[in-house]
Amino acid sequence: MPPKLGILAGGGELPARLIATCRATGRAFFVLAFEGHTEAGAIADAPHAWVRLGAAGKGLKLLKEAGVEELVLAGRFKRPTLSALRPDRRAVRLFTRLGRAAFGDDGLLSTVVAELEDEGFHVVGPDSIVADFLAPAGVYGRIAPDDQARLDIEHGVDVAAALGRLDVGHAVVVRQGVVLGVEAAEGTDALIRRCGGLEGSGGVLVKVKKPKQERRVDLPTIGVDTVKAAAQAGLDGIAVEAGESLVIDRAKVVEAADEAGLFVVGVAVSG
Amino acid sequence: MPPKLGILAGGGELPARLIATCRATGRAFFVLAFEGHTEAGAIADAPHAWVRLGAAGKGLKLLKEAGVEELVLAGRFKRPTLSALRPDRRAVRLFTRLGRAAFGDDGLLSTVVAELEDEGFHVVGPDSIVADFLAPAGVYGRIAPDDQARLDIEHGVDVAAALGRLDVGHAVVVRQGVVLGVEAAEGTDALIRRCGGLEGSGGVLVKVKKPKQERRVDLPTIGVDTVKAAAQAGLDGIAVEAGESLVIDRAKVVEAADEAGLFVVGVAVSG
Repeated sequence: MPPKLGILAGGGELPARLIATCRATGRAFFVLAFEGHTEAGAIADAPHAWVRLGAAGKGLKLLKEAGVEELVLAGRFKRPTLSALRPDRRAVRLFTRLGRAAFGDDGLLSTVVAELEDEGFHVVGPDSIVADFLAPAGVYGRIAPDDQARLDIEHGVDVAAALGRLDVGHAVVVRQGVVLGVEAAEGTDALIRRCGGLEGSGGVLVKVKKPKQERRVDLPTIGVDTVKAAAQAGLDGIAVEAGESLVIDRAKVVEAADEAGLFVVGVAVSG
Repeated sequence: MPPKLGILAGGGELPARLIATCRATGRAFFVLAFEGHTEAGAIADAPHAWVRLGAAGKGLKLLKEAGVEELVLAGRFKRPTLSALRPDRRAVRLFTRLGRAAFGDDGLLSTVVAELEDEGFHVVGPDSIVADFLAPAGVYGRIAPDDQARLDIEHGVDVAAALGRLDVGHAVVVRQGVVLGVEAAEGTDALIRRCGGLEGSGGVLVKVKKPKQERRVDLPTIGVDTVKAAAQAGLDGIAVEAGESLVIDRAKVVEAADEAGLFVVGVAVSG
């Protein structure tokens, strides 16, 4: 029997999906919910406790008391300001380890994972709990990208990779060779909305993994909400990196995409 | 006496400043204004004519009739959709020359400049009309960036240079090592506003020239409006590339920055 799973729950659809999977497979689990990040409705029925994101000491204590051995970080975490975080003594120790140079997302998350492992937890990626989350290669639904879209995907992958090397973000929107928007701290939803507000319509959302990012946390993720936002913004489709991004509930994603007339593809990214 | 100057006027403060300079120096000039791009108030008193951006043939004819020999592209042009552009025969010829591969900003603008020179015009940069527009190196006002801001500027220059190599945009906002936002098609003002809407405050707007861009057009530009927007968004300051960006009315920029408590610096970027 697999060890008890601790779900560190951020925003979005992922935590609820992991809870459903644990239930379906009979796996023991416990949810650590974070004030201002976790959606209360998504975890209300599950065994859980709430903490502030800055209360690292209390969080670790709760996880240990619950008998958790394996940990998964699931969902979006908005980067808090240091003042809003009000770090406890344990969190301050983490920041000391982090140092200034590593304050980007990649460094921050890698350090968090290393600290959790030092505390005796085994950290795994969401795709190791639900293998089906991992984006496969190929066209997912009924609609395939046309030649222009394929060129835009290629360009988007190049731009996103360059941004990823600098730890800027996962996502770009490209239309007819022109980069309409690039994601940084605002997140993918804001990026999509912004591009929808520009003149004209069409374009492709491209999401790829940052080369240096900790693979177990913060993989590029799309779900039904992403498809709906893309449709609303007038985009033609979505491309994600095959094998290195998560598609939450592919069946529903395909259904939503087919209905909206959008393509969704998994593309292999070399190097 | 210098030849008659044609001012192709986009949005922003630059066209009005060039008109004022021509008047102050007694230089003959003619303004070509573009529907939906040029601000009518900025050029109303100057000799001018209006055309659609897509009416290349008519625009060239007007410039020749006015006896213009030298041309300057001044101010922002929003990228139009092809349908909104309604290109005339002359504009279609330009697009044919352009081809698909060069449809990014750099390729587009370089081709426009080449076409204008083929028509017998001599294209110059705004800084050749008003040398004082070119950003000098150093701290402009009373406030200097602190150590954190200097690190953020350094990081911003690296990120902007990487983006520029991909012809994405000029500008980024960095706060304590984290890239808050990156400019693409939405423009610098929208970037600043967006970063102001994120949690926390502080950060630096960094603008540098794209390595492959046509130097005579589309240099990174800041003005009083940029300073005001940055102050409104809670940024700590602005850094521009010395010698490769334009500061429209430095005296007023410094005044606004000093009043708002922002720094403005010109930084040398090694190529």
